[in-house]
Amino acid sequence: MTIEGSSDASVGRRLRLGMVGGGRGAFIGAVHRIAARIDDRYELVAAALSADPARALASAADLRLAPDRAYTDFAVMAKTEAARPDGIDAVAIVTPNNVHFPAAKAFLEAGIAVICDKPMTMTVAEAEALAALVDKTGQVFVLTHNYTGYPMVRQARGMVAAGAIGKVRVVQVEYPQDWLTTALETTGQKQAAWRADPARNGAGGSLGDIGSHAFNLAEYVSGLTCEAVAADLSSFVPGRRLDDNAGVLMRYAGGARGTLWCSQVAPGNANALRLRVYGETGGLEWAQESPNELRFTVFGEPPRTIIRAGAGADAAAAHASRVPSGHPEGYLEGFAQIYADAAELLTARLEKRAPDSAATVVPTVRDGVRGVRFIAAAVASGRADAAWTRLDAV
Amino acid sequence: MTIEGSSDASVGRRLRLGMVGGGRGAFIGAVHRIAARIDDRYELVAAALSADPARALASAADLRLAPDRAYTDFAVMAKTEAARPDGIDAVAIVTPNNVHFPAAKAFLEAGIAVICDKPMTMTVAEAEALAALVDKTGQVFVLTHNYTGYPMVRQARGMVAAGAIGKVRVVQVEYPQDWLTTALETTGQKQAAWRADPARNGAGGSLGDIGSHAFNLAEYVSGLTCEAVAADLSSFVPGRRLDDNAGVLMRYAGGARGTLWCSQVAPGNANALRLRVYGETGGLEWAQESPNELRFTVFGEPPRTIIRAGAGADAAAAHASRVPSGHPEGYLEGFAQIYADAAELLTARLEKRAPDSAATVVPTVRDGVRGVRFIAAAVASGRADAAWTRLDAV
Amino acid sequence: MTIEGSSDASVGRRLRLGMVGGGRGAFIGAVHRIAARIDDRYELVAAALSADPARALASAADLRLAPDRAYTDFAVMAKTEAARPDGIDAVAIVTPNNVHFPAAKAFLEAGIAVICDKPMTMTVAEAEALAALVDKTGQVFVLTHNYTGYPMVRQARGMVAAGAIGKVRVVQVEYPQDWLTTALETTGQKQAAWRADPARNGAGGSLGDIGSHAFNLAEYVSGLTCEAVAADLSSFVPGRRLDDNAGVLMRYAGGARGTLWCSQVAPGNANALRLRVYGETGGLEWAQESPNELRFTVFGEPPRTIIRAGAGADAAAAHASRVPSGHPEGYLEGFAQIYADAAELLTARLEKRAPDSAATVVPTVRDGVRGVRFIAAAVASGRADAAWTRLDAV
Amino acid sequence: MTIEGSSDASVGRRLRLGMVGGGRGAFIGAVHRIAARIDDRYELVAAALSADPARALASAADLRLAPDRAYTDFAVMAKTEAARPDGIDAVAIVTPNNVHFPAAKAFLEAGIAVICDKPMTMTVAEAEALAALVDKTGQVFVLTHNYTGYPMVRQARGMVAAGAIGKVRVVQVEYPQDWLTTALETTGQKQAAWRADPARNGAGGSLGDIGSHAFNLAEYVSGLTCEAVAADLSSFVPGRRLDDNAGVLMRYAGGARGTLWCSQVAPGNANALRLRVYGETGGLEWAQESPNELRFTVFGEPPRTIIRAGAGADAAAAHASRVPSGHPEGYLEGFAQIYADAAELLTARLEKRAPDSAATVVPTVRDGVRGVRFIAAAVASGRADAAWTRLDAV
Repeated sequence: MTIEGSSDASVGRRLRLGMVGGGRGAFIGAVHRIAARIDDRYELVAAALSADPARALASAADLRLAPDRAYTDFAVMAKTEAARPDGIDAVAIVTPNNVHFPAAKAFLEAGIAVICDKPMTMTVAEAEALAALVDKTGQVFVLTHNYTGYPMVRQARGMVAAGAIGKVRVVQVEYPQDWLTTALETTGQKQAAWRADPARNGAGGSLGDIGSHAFNLAEYVSGLTCEAVAADLSSFVPGRRLDDNAGVLMRYAGGARGTLWCSQVAPGNANALRLRVYGETGGLEWAQESPNELRFTVFGEPPRTIIRAGAGADAAAAHASRVPSGHPEGYLEGFAQIYADAAELLTARLEKRAPDSAATVVPTVRDGVRGVRFIAAAVASGRADAAWTRLDAV
Repeated sequence: MTIEGSSDASVGRRLRLGMVGGGRGAFIGAVHRIAARIDDRYELVAAALSADPARALASAADLRLAPDRAYTDFAVMAKTEAARPDGIDAVAIVTPNNVHFPAAKAFLEAGIAVICDKPMTMTVAEAEALAALVDKTGQVFVLTHNYTGYPMVRQARGMVAAGAIGKVRVVQVEYPQDWLTTALETTGQKQAAWRADPARNGAGGSLGDIGSHAFNLAEYVSGLTCEAVAADLSSFVPGRRLDDNAGVLMRYAGGARGTLWCSQVAPGNANALRLRVYGETGGLEWAQESPNELRFTVFGEPPRTIIRAGAGADAAAAHASRVPSGHPEGYLEGFAQIYADAAELLTARLEKRAPDSAATVVPTVRDGVRGVRFIAAAVASGRADAAWTRLDAV
Repeated sequence: MTIEGSSDASVGRRLRLGMVGGGRGAFIGAVHRIAARIDDRYELVAAALSADPARALASAADLRLAPDRAYTDFAVMAKTEAARPDGIDAVAIVTPNNVHFPAAKAFLEAGIAVICDKPMTMTVAEAEALAALVDKTGQVFVLTHNYTGYPMVRQARGMVAAGAIGKVRVVQVEYPQDWLTTALETTGQKQAAWRADPARNGAGGSLGDIGSHAFNLAEYVSGLTCEAVAADLSSFVPGRRLDDNAGVLMRYAGGARGTLWCSQVAPGNANALRLRVYGETGGLEWAQESPNELRFTVFGEPPRTIIRAGAGADAAAAHASRVPSGHPEGYLEGFAQIYADAAELLTARLEKRAPDSAATVVPTVRDGVRGVRFIAAAVASGRADAAWTRLDAV
Repeated sequence: MTIEGSSDASVGRRLRLGMVGGGRGAFIGAVHRIAARIDDRYELVAAALSADPARALASAADLRLAPDRAYTDFAVMAKTEAARPDGIDAVAIVTPNNVHFPAAKAFLEAGIAVICDKPMTMTVAEAEALAALVDKTGQVFVLTHNYTGYPMVRQARGMVAAGAIGKVRVVQVEYPQDWLTTALETTGQKQAAWRADPARNGAGGSLGDIGSHAFNLAEYVSGLTCEAVAADLSSFVPGRRLDDNAGVLMRYAGGARGTLWCSQVAPGNANALRLRVYGETGGLEWAQESPNELRFTVFGEPPRTIIRAGAGADAAAAHASRVPSGHPEGYLEGFAQIYADAAELLTARLEKRAPDSAATVVPTVRDGVRGVRFIAAAVASGRADAAWTRLDAV
């Protein structure tokens, strides 16, 4: 999506999209739908919007879906859509975490591309199985680590890769929130309820919900592989079964070091994801709540503020931008970029051509495996009094 | 659009939208189309995308429009669509300024609602004529003073009206940019070219392009009516025929005072629109480049930062929000809100019911008249060595 | 004062300082004394600290002054000190405005250097008379436009002079406060009381107190001469006799334009002095409440943040710095720099040598004349419904 | 030091101050001298400014010290001054770390109060010995953890103690710098040279220089006692013998958790000390480079920005303030506050009265012991692959 003189819809065919999860009362489903609409590459035509059949059908009517494509079971949906001549090209899986794996498996096996929410699966075994299945089917699989859709994150990744800050030494990442400062999960709030339930959420509380985003961002931008973690986990709210705060020491291949902090009990913080990467010759700093800015310092020179679509913004950032500098793009556009890139990957596959290389940086099943390993390793470390735990040993 | 548990498309029918202007090479057309898609209340089905016929048709193909609804003339389009049983419900007019009036007139007379870019017309006479026509037809007419779609602008307006800062004394507004620091209009850049041409742009350069936004924001939030201006206009770039910088003293009904500054030659500024309103008991400050925050000070208390969808954000802000606090919404969502509110006004009219009152704050033809009067008065004052000029006397 | 390896007191002799005003209950007197101590170039040895004799003597005892140098009358002090072999080298005049002129005159005529608070005098005639007296006596006269002591203000001035932003086009300056939002002057608060009294304060309310600082900063950094102003003055608080808010259009020699806004009724603002200067090739922005940073943009490049004593900070900034980058210096250090430079000017005179050129940028009687002319012109313009008023015509 | 109507010198006697270290080429010595002057409670009258005799004497001349009080040996100075009727009341020890203990011991044993730089000693044994000596002598001993002199740090400490954020759960502290990004210590730069030398600096590199400040700030504000650390230390610059980056997990008595990060290889950071404390009902955030602001959030309410000397600032902040809100105070004033409080403690002792309770929060030998234990524990943990190490076990 370039800025000047672009035609937002000159990018060719509109893909047929399905959705699993995201019915009435859900939060992230609507976000995915807006994201899919922004760049006009998808049309939502089928869905299994809830595990509750009545809610699934009512939600489908809300979304003007044809009745015969309003499903109550994702397995049925996968088979039925695969059999239709106008069946969906891709499915978005936006359920609680425990459904990610079976649903992704069902659609991949039905020959349908998958756009899946994170964390990708409940266990490392599931994650590896999914990766193998993606390899086997050759299908497009995109993971919505949506923060990687922000233009300045893209640019930061490219700058590090190009040596703009020299060899990376230190990676500091954090993601504090405050919405679980009290026992919100006991009040009937739906988002809090399933996230507080290990059976639906998995073993990582704040680690799984937001720590996994922070971990992904750190690896994504630094280009480094985290080898081991030492994690100190807390559950500060009485009765809470999963961690709501974690401090993590991180060791990366090649000798870089860093800390990761995630918290859902830090009053005054909403989604304060922040990444700082320091190398031998410079540093980069980015904060999700001011996503249009990237602070870049060459050691010995004044810090520069590179603004999305402004001076110093590069092609990777332009690829992920819609409007000129100074008109902020936000969370929904970042999310939309994941969808736009998924559309490019899938369209290229359908058209039997190579995709635009700028789209190939979107997170895939490999990032999903990394994230699940991070959660597993951090949880294991936490249970072992913060002992070093390798990500390849969980 | 509420945040939690909302279904983004449960709002009923999708309106049929047409567009005039916005073809290949245009900027704002694509913005309008994204804005129209975000909340899924419109389907673009017809357009006259360019004054150049070949460009109009090629652009329509880009947008997958049916060939019989790809027009090369807005007048033909208005009549043809009005005659179709599935004709458009509304048209978006996104042309250079000189086309706004004839196009809006044509569609209004054809019984079609209008969403029009700003400044509304080239002259006060046109503006008043359009207002009379809207009154006569009773048609929906929405002006895309898009910054009024930002949630915290909505909240600020409501807070002032509710007395949160007491009687307003001082209104400071500014909108600096830097993109015309050099003679860009002589390089073939399309956006700069028509804006530098009085025949297509009108008499106000920076005043018309961005000063009118600043003026609108000041009146919109303060709830005050500007009575007179004293404007000092400059054209710093050699050869430029219109103002590229203006300092304006402003007098409001009721005794409030303020200044307005707009500039397109202020290096380091992209779209740094900023409003500050001070009353007898408090102050409010908002900046477009950090639109999710509203700084609110009760005199004698520490400043508070109210964050979109966060603590202290009110119903007016929630109405204009899509995602929770800390996940920034930006320019496109603000723009989308104008479209969402227009959809509600139009749907309510079609359904013969009263619209949601939260949608009725969207700018209309009355705001358009005000903006055109401001430009005319400021230009007249500028020509008279910054003499005080009343807005009702131009 | 350089940073690394400097010896703070290796600068030679300690000057003998006197003070007029600044006794118990005063505010700015203590600031001057701290400023004079920071760089250890002065010893306070004599004073007439109050117009009230008892208060003058008690205040002198507070300050450990020798009884024979605790005066109750500045005229007596000037004569007596001039006659002493160990008499003061310089006097700081920190009284309400109406005393500045007679006191400065008395000390200059006694052959004693003057460090005087601003605005320099009550009238243009007094200001010109003082300038003539300084010329005649050749004495050192420094005006405490203290904001010019900030390192990044010094650097900005030098950068503009060196062409870093090209020919200046636009100068935007503002100084909002909120302390006079209510009728504080009627409560017995001493600072508010004299400032609200035309007989002690002069004709400019917010214009004199803070507008004069903003004016000075604009001319100081831009290097331009303001030729004419059009000022809209308000007195929002009932019963207030002087302006508490002013919007001013400014025209500078050479064609630059700008606005000046000063207010003492802007809730949420303490001392929010801010200057922005834009030229043909770049821009500079500085804010008093974050004084260690200077934002510098070359048009077409990302904005840089130059930090006091950090990368990109120059010799002019280093001259005015005491500690390394990242350890903020503030208001008192900026004030101290005025004193340090005054000490250098006076010491050089005593030693019959040329002063360090870095010290010669300190504001002098000429800046004082400019400031008084600005106040007079703005007040005159305000009384004439914001008619353009030349500074050389008042 | 209150703001309004204060007389900066009405606080009584001026103490006689000596200094050890801080001669030509030193950095922190000049800072201590400015700090001592700001509030006019001290007069520097004696010093042993360097271990190099010639440099010591030349530096003393720079400072206008009487020749008979320009020492070349601190032990001689301690004895000589103790024997003089006009001997120093207190000594400031501003040497490299290895001299702190013997010098402090010598002056305490001579009956002279000590103001000592941090880290207090090279070893825990020395620290405990010093604490015992202070207990035995009853002498005033103040440690210049200067950041505790900032008004908003004082206020934050008091707010936490008063329950403003509820029981503390999470303490995040960090102190990144960039000045040692390259091997500055090999270039002859004096500050870098001794800090890179374990024999003069001690075992903690970044940990000792800045990690100890961060640790102190965390305990000071939170009121908590850190029980154990798990530290991952790096020396990124080839040839460097001490750590230049450390990530530390922290466990506090009572169950609070946190991380500490210090780095001297983080390009773009000068002295970016930052503390965030989160409790059951609210949060506090403070950053050294914007020291006049304290961000305070009550969970469920909009964040407030409390500004030094502004609305919401309390008595503890006022005690440490000199000028009104909006006129920034900085590093030197924070440092001066340590000196002012030390003066009050010492004056009270000399006058056999209780000190002003607001001054008793100044860091003492107990804080010094804590800091040295932190460094020792973190270094031990680092050597043990980040194993948990108790501070009371080193």
